[in-house]
Amino acid sequence: MTTRWAYLGPAGTFTEEALDALLAGERDGGGRDGSQPDRLSQTSVDAALGAVRRGDADVAVVPIENSVEGGVSATLDALATGDRLVITAEVLVPVRFVLASRPGTTLADVAVVGSHPHAIAQCRGWLAQHLPAVTTVVTLSTAAAATALASSGANHDPAHDAALCSRGAAEAAGLVVLGDDVADRAGAVTRFVAVRRPGDLPPPSGADRTTVVAYQREDVAGSLLALLEQFAARGVNLSRIDSRPLGTALGQYCFSIDCDGHVADPRVGEALTGLRRVTADLRFVGSYPRADGLAPTTPPGTSDGDFVAASDWLADQRRGSTG
Amino acid sequence: MTTRWAYLGPAGTFTEEALDALLAGERDGGGRDGSQPDRLSQTSVDAALGAVRRGDADVAVVPIENSVEGGVSATLDALATGDRLVITAEVLVPVRFVLASRPGTTLADVAVVGSHPHAIAQCRGWLAQHLPAVTTVVTLSTAAAATALASSGANHDPAHDAALCSRGAAEAAGLVVLGDDVADRAGAVTRFVAVRRPGDLPPPSGADRTTVVAYQREDVAGSLLALLEQFAARGVNLSRIDSRPLGTALGQYCFSIDCDGHVADPRVGEALTGLRRVTADLRFVGSYPRADGLAPTTPPGTSDGDFVAASDWLADQRRGSTG
Amino acid sequence: MTTRWAYLGPAGTFTEEALDALLAGERDGGGRDGSQPDRLSQTSVDAALGAVRRGDADVAVVPIENSVEGGVSATLDALATGDRLVITAEVLVPVRFVLASRPGTTLADVAVVGSHPHAIAQCRGWLAQHLPAVTTVVTLSTAAAATALASSGANHDPAHDAALCSRGAAEAAGLVVLGDDVADRAGAVTRFVAVRRPGDLPPPSGADRTTVVAYQREDVAGSLLALLEQFAARGVNLSRIDSRPLGTALGQYCFSIDCDGHVADPRVGEALTGLRRVTADLRFVGSYPRADGLAPTTPPGTSDGDFVAASDWLADQRRGSTG
Amino acid sequence: MTTRWAYLGPAGTFTEEALDALLAGERDGGGRDGSQPDRLSQTSVDAALGAVRRGDADVAVVPIENSVEGGVSATLDALATGDRLVITAEVLVPVRFVLASRPGTTLADVAVVGSHPHAIAQCRGWLAQHLPAVTTVVTLSTAAAATALASSGANHDPAHDAALCSRGAAEAAGLVVLGDDVADRAGAVTRFVAVRRPGDLPPPSGADRTTVVAYQREDVAGSLLALLEQFAARGVNLSRIDSRPLGTALGQYCFSIDCDGHVADPRVGEALTGLRRVTADLRFVGSYPRADGLAPTTPPGTSDGDFVAASDWLADQRRGSTG
Repeated sequence: MTTRWAYLGPAGTFTEEALDALLAGERDGGGRDGSQPDRLSQTSVDAALGAVRRGDADVAVVPIENSVEGGVSATLDALATGDRLVITAEVLVPVRFVLASRPGTTLADVAVVGSHPHAIAQCRGWLAQHLPAVTTVVTLSTAAAATALASSGANHDPAHDAALCSRGAAEAAGLVVLGDDVADRAGAVTRFVAVRRPGDLPPPSGADRTTVVAYQREDVAGSLLALLEQFAARGVNLSRIDSRPLGTALGQYCFSIDCDGHVADPRVGEALTGLRRVTADLRFVGSYPRADGLAPTTPPGTSDGDFVAASDWLADQRRGSTG
Repeated sequence: MTTRWAYLGPAGTFTEEALDALLAGERDGGGRDGSQPDRLSQTSVDAALGAVRRGDADVAVVPIENSVEGGVSATLDALATGDRLVITAEVLVPVRFVLASRPGTTLADVAVVGSHPHAIAQCRGWLAQHLPAVTTVVTLSTAAAATALASSGANHDPAHDAALCSRGAAEAAGLVVLGDDVADRAGAVTRFVAVRRPGDLPPPSGADRTTVVAYQREDVAGSLLALLEQFAARGVNLSRIDSRPLGTALGQYCFSIDCDGHVADPRVGEALTGLRRVTADLRFVGSYPRADGLAPTTPPGTSDGDFVAASDWLADQRRGSTG
Repeated sequence: MTTRWAYLGPAGTFTEEALDALLAGERDGGGRDGSQPDRLSQTSVDAALGAVRRGDADVAVVPIENSVEGGVSATLDALATGDRLVITAEVLVPVRFVLASRPGTTLADVAVVGSHPHAIAQCRGWLAQHLPAVTTVVTLSTAAAATALASSGANHDPAHDAALCSRGAAEAAGLVVLGDDVADRAGAVTRFVAVRRPGDLPPPSGADRTTVVAYQREDVAGSLLALLEQFAARGVNLSRIDSRPLGTALGQYCFSIDCDGHVADPRVGEALTGLRRVTADLRFVGSYPRADGLAPTTPPGTSDGDFVAASDWLADQRRGSTG
Repeated sequence: MTTRWAYLGPAGTFTEEALDALLAGERDGGGRDGSQPDRLSQTSVDAALGAVRRGDADVAVVPIENSVEGGVSATLDALATGDRLVITAEVLVPVRFVLASRPGTTLADVAVVGSHPHAIAQCRGWLAQHLPAVTTVVTLSTAAAATALASSGANHDPAHDAALCSRGAAEAAGLVVLGDDVADRAGAVTRFVAVRRPGDLPPPSGADRTTVVAYQREDVAGSLLALLEQFAARGVNLSRIDSRPLGTALGQYCFSIDCDGHVADPRVGEALTGLRRVTADLRFVGSYPRADGLAPTTPPGTSDGDFVAASDWLADQRRGSTG
């Protein structure tokens, strides 16, 4: 049966690049009958995850973390609330921007640049240097900034005359590139995840990541310290932690966390049970292979072998071992 | 001399409400000669802080934390890098949204709603219930969504036919209110801060907040744990902690932190020196009175009196006290 | 079959009182055939534990902790090394001393007082007040000080002319009491334990104590901190901790520890596996009912029910629960 | 003026060796007029410290820690209570035992061995191997076991016919050595300290030790953890920690602690003020040069330079530095 993939469209976004990369790596990327997966373009992260929750899609591809902008709030919040979903895969997409416009436009002609706010933020220095008098307008996605230029003359004339977008989006919209690789920091990368309804977990690969959302029981400092100590006591490293407001009052937060390892690993399992005990609530959002294939390094006494040995020792003592 | 205040405009934004509240509370709100302060409308947080850094403004008013959306990334990042600035005051502004449109438009006519992404996020439920078929477009600010409707017919026809904005902005633009208090959560509030170039600190008020940015020395987990332990060891509570990417690679973060108390307090001072020692870098972003006037509660052994008594005891021992 | 009990004799010591109390409480105090248990008097803690290790006795009764003198080093060291033994029961014995001498001796006649060093230490104030010119000599036990006076004239004339001992020992030796309840602190108590070869554990009673010996991996401070954090992370309280030298060099220690709860309790079990992982070696020395019947109090999130619930939750997640 | 040194006598004890070593190292070992120091032999640790407290002696030399037996309880307790005294110097004395007897006695003749309990404990293996049928009796000191043999025939005939003592004590008493270096562990060492009334502290030497007694505020586990965290937060290592009962009830303890560094060091000073705040009481028992001359190693961020730099930084921020 054909797998239906929801993603933040339109065609040409970085999310679609992530979708392509995930399809290339997934066994179910193409159906066994050779059928192509369905690609369902969505207008927002909420819409993509909502499609999976309602059963209109099997998988959603959404950005979760960017090396320049940090955790993607819309994704973190949508995963932290509503029906539980789980991450089953991740992929890293290099983020390179071009400045593109309609054929015939030159750099000197550009008075207004449109793009997604994250893109504008990442190219701020380049714009200040090459277009000091430019103003910017925000669009729903980087690709939308490009397609608005392509379709101009139609419904609404866009407020901008050049777009910050991917090269693919520029080409798809028939635009010309006025500036290549215009992001202020080279090497920016966004991590995208594939999200499904709960079910079978990907098996441990030896280099996994686990995502959870921890709801604090009391104040920020004490709660966060107790939470981190649960990881530290088992030698489990964190690769990302984002505080997200509960929406009830200033200072009320939950924590979205990525840690190294798989929920099936003894060390991760014990850390999560500890976390479960000291938090008001804990939501498991999946264990999945890391895109970079980095296996966790463990401090002395916290390897999975150490956990198994300690567990065996305890069973012996409880049985009244005479050794 | 007239004080120049930079803020995220245009007129009618919540930032302008914050500015009004700050001016009402500040002694230098009006010059001694009766002159009015200069109000310098800016197009972005970066622009407002840049004006202060360059000396074109004396103070910038920017949002730092919202009870629904969390820490404001643009502000946190702009305070964490560039020439150091310090926060000297804060104010809380209730966030109430109306849905407004041109006279003659009814709710049934609304097909596209425009606003700042934060506002759209906070009113999502109301829109789904009252305008299930509506689409949304993003604008630079909530007030910009309103003014675009007022000025329509001019330069660009706006892509939306109703705006989510404050009542003040709707009225200033000559719009009519189609829905009042349309945010999904009542009681949402945004905290705004007044930011200046470093100089004299506001004196301790007994109910202060201190903001710092800590740059981690090593990995996330160990670094964050060591950092929190420095606060915990002195009984200093945190009211906000946001991880912000350094922009260099995934997993490289600094932490923007608000803690209770004033840098002049012994307990806060010792916590910050501890933090300074265990971090790669620590940036002090100001101590200022809390808008809610809540004095910190301290665990046993961590009152300022306890710190002073312990310090006196140490001095006695070092002198070779015979007691 | 008759149970053979080794204890620190001779008759009249506080250890024999402990033996009596344990026999009264033990189901195997008297054999099923009505036979009396064998009472094997020993000259030292080492001798009593050695008798159990060799199989010459079934149980040894030894002191482990005194409210005035602290942990009993001889017992702690003998349990920490050699073939492993386990504690199966404990009893508290009030420690009251009398000053006793041969009939005809008055307080004014006493020039030299003999007793065990612990007894001398606990009566120092009384002696200074009532016998300011007295000198003291040490004996192997408090009862030995009494019996030496009874048997004097025989083999060796004792070096002392009055004994600090229990009333029972004084009476058994035919001595008269010159001073009653002469300890400086009222209410002193010694905790004695019954020690056996490893085998079936006493079942959890709801108010148990567990004894372990932890061998540090590195330096004192780091090792001890890591060890305590393992208990704290599971809300397990400690009632005694004694550092004991490894004998190899100054600063090389192991830690003898009593904690609340039974090894079969989930919370204690997880703490011990954590301890096992972070120590160079961990020796389990038994779980047994507390003599005072005090059930442990647990911080939020660390009750046995919390541990079971967290464990069930983890199993659900690992199975790919759809909840 | 002649300095009066109290020590645990008689001549020939290891304490007297410690006294000789301290006199060789002290500037005031001999008076400026060439006079010899007074050597005041005492019968117990309490007597030696009492002489200093009363002003009958200027310094007391007492054992504080043994590599085989651990902390010396009598010394720890006497320093923890009563008028405060401070340690001003330490010295390490190798502990080597001989088995000695009267001329004419052979090893085969020895039925009873006398010595201090610590010595008997340290030679247990040798005795079991060479004198399997021997019994032991305890004496007040190792030297006392030797002198009792020398003076036998007089007042009291000793209960033993061979002594475990130092070679010096054996020779002084005119005994012959039946076995040399009979301790089970080679390399045993005892640390002795010079104790004075409070006054000028020895200046920091770069390789110092500090001794304190901390009285817990609550239960053992929480109190000890809080205490250790104060040291750990400043990177101060501990070289010894002994729990000592308060004498009030089982489970009520204070902690006698040696840490690396001098109270004048910023890192030690801050750790002690922290300790002072979290404990019910803290007694400072001196800072003095380590006998082994080992300078402390400090984790990153905890050198004295780091503390000074952090303190300077704090002062800058409090002044409103514009940097």
